[in-house]
Amino acid sequence: MANRPLDILNKALQTSVIVRIKGGREFRGVLNGYDVHMNLVLQNAEEIQGGEVTKKLGSVVIRGDTVVFISPSQV
Amino acid sequence: MANRPLDILNKALQTSVIVRIKGGREFRGVLNGYDVHMNLVLQNAEEIQGGEVTKKLGSVVIRGDTVVFISPSQV
Amino acid sequence: MANRPLDILNKALQTSVIVRIKGGREFRGVLNGYDVHMNLVLQNAEEIQGGEVTKKLGSVVIRGDTVVFISPSQV
Amino acid sequence: MANRPLDILNKALQTSVIVRIKGGREFRGVLNGYDVHMNLVLQNAEEIQGGEVTKKLGSVVIRGDTVVFISPSQV
Amino acid sequence: MANRPLDILNKALQTSVIVRIKGGREFRGVLNGYDVHMNLVLQNAEEIQGGEVTKKLGSVVIRGDTVVFISPSQV
Amino acid sequence: MANRPLDILNKALQTSVIVRIKGGREFRGVLNGYDVHMNLVLQNAEEIQGGEVTKKLGSVVIRGDTVVFISPSQV
Amino acid sequence: MANRPLDILNKALQTSVIVRIKGGREFRGVLNGYDVHMNLVLQNAEEIQGGEVTKKLGSVVIRGDTVVFISPSQV
Repeated sequence: MANRPLDILNKALQTSVIVRIKGGREFRGVLNGYDVHMNLVLQNAEEIQGGEVTKKLGSVVIRGDTVVFISPSQV
Repeated sequence: MANRPLDILNKALQTSVIVRIKGGREFRGVLNGYDVHMNLVLQNAEEIQGGEVTKKLGSVVIRGDTVVFISPSQV
Repeated sequence: MANRPLDILNKALQTSVIVRIKGGREFRGVLNGYDVHMNLVLQNAEEIQGGEVTKKLGSVVIRGDTVVFISPSQV
Repeated sequence: MANRPLDILNKALQTSVIVRIKGGREFRGVLNGYDVHMNLVLQNAEEIQGGEVTKKLGSVVIRGDTVVFISPSQV
Repeated sequence: MANRPLDILNKALQTSVIVRIKGGREFRGVLNGYDVHMNLVLQNAEEIQGGEVTKKLGSVVIRGDTVVFISPSQV
Repeated sequence: MANRPLDILNKALQTSVIVRIKGGREFRGVLNGYDVHMNLVLQNAEEIQGGEVTKKLGSVVIRGDTVVFISPSQV
Repeated sequence: MANRPLDILNKALQTSVIVRIKGGREFRGVLNGYDVHMNLVLQNAEEIQGGEVTKKLGSVVIRGDTVVFISPSQV
């Protein structure tokens, strides 16, 4: 059965996701919310570059138009 | 007979596709869903650079506005 | 008589076109469909760089917002 | 008397125009059509770089969002 | 008293303006028209780089989304 | 319970936030307001590059479409 | 009490502001008007690079989509 992109985000709520943004940086955290623009809320977020955690951010709102992909760990 | 772009995506559901994004990276996976913005859901997704698999992603939501093309294997 | 851009695409259906995208790459194929965003469907598509075919793609959906121009062979 | 941008395009129909796109390339051809997005149809189009014709394109649909300016020869 | 941006363009009609576009180039000419997207019509337009006139363009339609600023000489 | 992105901004009002913009610069200040475009108002804002305060800005309106993320200190 | 971004612009009318645009340049002048797109009108505007005034512009309409931030001197 097909899943629409926002269905996947809905199923991934409260689970760990990787978010890549334009320019190549990634954020890892627990997906706590989203909206139709793919603006995202992550909790316990970390910024990752080249596989290394470069910054601990706590909660963060990521603007949808900078997002390349969102990859849930367990969907 | 002409096919609209979203018709092609619909026919490609549950089949393997290649997605190229701006900047040149590609993703390969099974197209599991899409929406009118060409946001895409891939399952068993892999990221590819220069013909090499560089990352296994499992499921991934790719934001439509980063997409250059989607090429189904069998349409 | 004037032709609107989408009229030209309509007349070019099922004929060979060249599509240039931002960054300079080109695709050649048979225009099989389009929509109002200039998302395009090409069949028997090939990617071209510097006049050389660099990739055979079969069918491909090209996202309109990456398109610079579409040049039909016979309009 | 003031002229709205689309009025100028309308007056330039079937006459020769220069179109510059983002990145600096230019196209010269006969303006055969346009729409409200400034998508353009040129006939007998040529691509020009550094004052040299680098490619003969015949008819071409140029996507409005790549356009920097359109300069009619005779308006 | 406050002036909305389009009021300023309206007052500048038929007077000389400088238009800077993204990337830094500038155009000088008589503002002959505009629309709500800030698409502009200049007459007797010249392109300027580094203070030098590099191209005489006659009339030109400049697409609003490439515009950084418009500076009227006398408002 | 899930939080929509604008809920997080609402909860962060009058508290200290970090805002990263495209290109990598960051601003730190007290979030005093926002709108649906994620345009932001910061008070006592400072610009930060490489961990150093490079500019004190007082109050500042940051345009939403330049924002990469907003990270509240205490949500 | 929270201030929406356009409230701040309204309060800053007829006072001196700094506007930074994409790419890093700044303009200083008296905010004379704005609209919902954050298109701005500055009077007695100066362009600033690296802290130096590089150009005196008089009145200028700055297109909102190039704006990074607007910082009023006295709000």
